Amino acid sequence: MDPASIRALTFDVFGTVVDWRTSVIREGEAFGKAHRLSVDWAKFADAWRGLYQPAMDEVRSGRRSWIKLDELHRESLVRLLGDFGVGGLSPADVDHLNYAWHRLDPWPDAVMGLTRLRQHFILATLSNGNIALMVDMAKRAGLPWDAILGAEVARAYKPMPEAYLRSADALGLRPEQCLMVAAHPSDLAAAARSGLRTAYVPRPLEFGPGRGPSEPAPGQPFDVVASDFIELAEKLGC
Amino acid sequence: MDPASIRALTFDVFGTVVDWRTSVIREGEAFGKAHRLSVDWAKFADAWRGLYQPAMDEVRSGRRSWIKLDELHRESLVRLLGDFGVGGLSPADVDHLNYAWHRLDPWPDAVMGLTRLRQHFILATLSNGNIALMVDMAKRAGLPWDAILGAEVARAYKPMPEAYLRSADALGLRPEQCLMVAAHPSDLAAAARSGLRTAYVPRPLEFGPGRGPSEPAPGQPFDVVASDFIELAEKLGC
Repeated sequence: MDPASIRALTFDVFGTVVDWRTSVIREGEAFGKAHRLSVDWAKFADAWRGLYQPAMDEVRSGRRSWIKLDELHRESLVRLLGDFGVGGLSPADVDHLNYAWHRLDPWPDAVMGLTRLRQHFILATLSNGNIALMVDMAKRAGLPWDAILGAEVARAYKPMPEAYLRSADALGLRPEQCLMVAAHPSDLAAAARSGLRTAYVPRPLEFGPGRGPSEPAPGQPFDVVASDFIELAEKLGC
Repeated sequence: MDPASIRALTFDVFGTVVDWRTSVIREGEAFGKAHRLSVDWAKFADAWRGLYQPAMDEVRSGRRSWIKLDELHRESLVRLLGDFGVGGLSPADVDHLNYAWHRLDPWPDAVMGLTRLRQHFILATLSNGNIALMVDMAKRAGLPWDAILGAEVARAYKPMPEAYLRSADALGLRPEQCLMVAAHPSDLAAAARSGLRTAYVPRPLEFGPGRGPSEPAPGQPFDVVASDFIELAEKLGC
């Protein structure tokens, strides 16, 4: 792949740009301390993320009409609070904990890598997170996006083809002018099926120590593989 | 209005943030020189902008389904090239001239004012310009938006209420947490009817020397009036 053929980099965010697990655990522990709760927040974070794909599947399948990820996150949270035996929280408390997903920390290389990449390319989110979530996260973490795209703008959750195709169209670009950057091979496989180029950036710590990254299928092709966003910038000539 | 009640500033762009007329004339003159055309580019720019509202009216009325401003601009351009007696251009040439709207220059205070405002508020475009147009313009001019919202995300052209309401909703905010910034009183009146706060920043040179700005209706209220974005930042405590 010639980097000169690429105009925009589109990013998966949860796991690829930010370390959702460590951040949700941190938020949960602070919340638990303030509310005197006894909860294993690592288990809680994993359970919350575990409900992520099933919740979006309801929308992807058409069984539910379009709804933002903030709402899906909140429904999952209310259910898990019950499962973990937490009661007596006000709606505002639940909202605050739900917005933990707006306060995720980037991987250590992310801001520096993105800042370099932005000199040469349009940088857009192509996440299942909704616009407000992405904007709040970017402002807090200093993520230098040119545009917040993805599921809410496309009204389709990845890996539906519309999520990728409508994001490229919103940028006025052909799919092959977009390079999808993700830590998840399944996301990249779906992007490639829609004609986008692919950059695989494994994040071995996404699911916690010792659990390893999402593994590509044997022989799955990528246009670029990089260990982090600094190496990605180097490989793209930035 | 207490500035602490405001979370996001939403901006009209053409005329408010950028000087479309001077920029389109500059682009036209460069294009005319390269193609040896004899055209009065000031008249051309005014005629092009003159077709802007009628073109969007077709969509607002429902007579046409949703279509991006880039497409409306191009249709108007093709018509005007005929009216001005210009022929023999390739489709790529026409595209290049059409993208003059992606290469508009900001008013002199815009980047510095936005940069100050961004320390305290979410800054989003709420323009009838499409996403690619706004992204290209921002990247070239250094406009530090947190989000590109407006007509294409809302699928409604201002002054339809949906354009304002869906933009606030995309930010996860209530309308009254958003301050609409515009040089056009009619835009602000529509924003106020949807519950947004209003900041009027007159741009006396928008339509060319001696033509004056869009005038407010007698007694039209605004939450803030400022002569430029620097003064706006000061008035909002930035």
